[in-house]
Amino acid sequence: MAEPIRVGIVGYGNLGRGVERAIGANPDMRPAGVFTRRAPSSVVPASESTTVRGIDDLAGLQDEIDVLVLCGGSRSDLPLQSPQLASAYSLVDSFDTHPRIPEHFAAVDASARAAGTTAIISTGWDPGLFSLQRLYGEAILPQGATHTFWGRGLSQGHSDAIRRIPGVAGGVQYTIPSEEAMARVRAGESPVLSTRDKHTRECFVVLEDGADADAVREAIVTMPDYFEPYDTTVHFITAEELARDHAGAPHGGFVIRSGTTSSGTTQTVEFRLALDSNPEFTASVLVAYARAAARLASAGDHGAKTPFDVAPGLLSPKSPEALRAELL
Amino acid sequence: MAEPIRVGIVGYGNLGRGVERAIGANPDMRPAGVFTRRAPSSVVPASESTTVRGIDDLAGLQDEIDVLVLCGGSRSDLPLQSPQLASAYSLVDSFDTHPRIPEHFAAVDASARAAGTTAIISTGWDPGLFSLQRLYGEAILPQGATHTFWGRGLSQGHSDAIRRIPGVAGGVQYTIPSEEAMARVRAGESPVLSTRDKHTRECFVVLEDGADADAVREAIVTMPDYFEPYDTTVHFITAEELARDHAGAPHGGFVIRSGTTSSGTTQTVEFRLALDSNPEFTASVLVAYARAAARLASAGDHGAKTPFDVAPGLLSPKSPEALRAELL
Repeated sequence: MAEPIRVGIVGYGNLGRGVERAIGANPDMRPAGVFTRRAPSSVVPASESTTVRGIDDLAGLQDEIDVLVLCGGSRSDLPLQSPQLASAYSLVDSFDTHPRIPEHFAAVDASARAAGTTAIISTGWDPGLFSLQRLYGEAILPQGATHTFWGRGLSQGHSDAIRRIPGVAGGVQYTIPSEEAMARVRAGESPVLSTRDKHTRECFVVLEDGADADAVREAIVTMPDYFEPYDTTVHFITAEELARDHAGAPHGGFVIRSGTTSSGTTQTVEFRLALDSNPEFTASVLVAYARAAARLASAGDHGAKTPFDVAPGLLSPKSPEALRAELL
Repeated sequence: MAEPIRVGIVGYGNLGRGVERAIGANPDMRPAGVFTRRAPSSVVPASESTTVRGIDDLAGLQDEIDVLVLCGGSRSDLPLQSPQLASAYSLVDSFDTHPRIPEHFAAVDASARAAGTTAIISTGWDPGLFSLQRLYGEAILPQGATHTFWGRGLSQGHSDAIRRIPGVAGGVQYTIPSEEAMARVRAGESPVLSTRDKHTRECFVVLEDGADADAVREAIVTMPDYFEPYDTTVHFITAEELARDHAGAPHGGFVIRSGTTSSGTTQTVEFRLALDSNPEFTASVLVAYARAAARLASAGDHGAKTPFDVAPGLLSPKSPEALRAELL
């Protein structure tokens, strides 16, 4: 068996913990340490054998690390870290601010080409696996329409928005896709769907002592961009119920392409994720792409890539021969 | 806009007709003729502008054709045609005899490497799109199980088997996936499923005058390999009903990967096709891979490939920049 792929983990929140776990599930990989901006002694990895160092210690560890998995956020971490670290390491990230992907790609590409590294950006499930399904669907059925539905799942951004409202002690928000809208898309109706038609939002909120429930509800359902464009339901619960029933991070969704290949002949392609843990699944995707990044780098195929540029076989630990015999 | 990709169609049955139609749905491609083993004058293409020639006329048309789409069968056509034609043209086929894929790949690869052509084999949906889903699912969730279900759909092979039984004037067979088995897989139960658990078979049969219905039914349900391992239902209908209700070729199916990323955390990835026309959809997949084959050939990436080796972006007519901006 070949030498294992040594994977450095940059950042150790929920996603970083998921990456450490996912590396453990892949016998051809091993962790090459966690790199954190916090005091290393304050970070306790899940496995005793995983070392923790400061992020500045990454300077000059190229002999110990084949690929980095960046586990920071898209708002402030990755726009700086990905181009900077690609100047020294091959890496993958999960940059997910869709409108800023072209500029992120350009910055990472310049850095990676100059350094001779390979950096796969925007892996994960959306962008990532959902993007792949949108591409395959459109390429195969050029006469048709693609709809992406998210949920049922916990939205971190919308949960944060609820928690910033005065009088709110805690809360979570679930995005729920409309079964009726999905049924119409599956049937090949190619409906024109408004934001309100596609998803509803459901909130579970803990009030501070003495807070006005009606005022909180009104503040939520009228919040521009976040809730106003949707039909939103607000449930008030206790802190105990919040901790007991809403501690997980489930998510998922659907990409549905419906098209015609001749008059009256409808063809429907549907991809669905149902995830008990969004960060653990995202981490699993990142780790599979880390394998591909290490292989592309070894083959001399440098620069920035996205999942669109990565041949599927590169994600699997199996040889091309085994893949053809077992999975084709 | 770049020059259109010129696509030759080898064979003109249901699949070849679908390929001609799919080329018409892709503005960056144009048909470079149908090549048939029949008398060319006996073949009438759907479009008046499509030329029809004998298959032997393919010798020396490299200046007119960028890629061939082979539309023959896996039993006797493709094992000969794919290696032979890859010695002169880049091509795609839909070779679907799973256990013989390794030897087919080797024969095509030797021919394509020697000639400097690019041949993508086993495109279509199974093998093809379903294979890709099996690969992505296994690579991302290494601790789990994958189940493929087919249907509801018309099986050509099983319909042919029915029609060979004495006393049968006509008939079709539908493969039906078990909703109960799919529900258990989706729930992450990782059940051990027998052949009988996963699919049932439903037959619609027209008897010859004076044939014994009970004898025909018994001959069907006890047929080894084809029907004996399944729960099979046989309906007797009239020739008019067969023509009216069973002239289409619907098909589809499901690939479901269910795995865990930590104790009790189930993640499920599901891919589903619901096809009004199996040959038209298969043709659409072949044509998208023909675009990829032409591009790989232009880039000097020669030899045999499978969908596992083809970066998704190569299937789309859009540029990498447009794909990142619009679909990622």
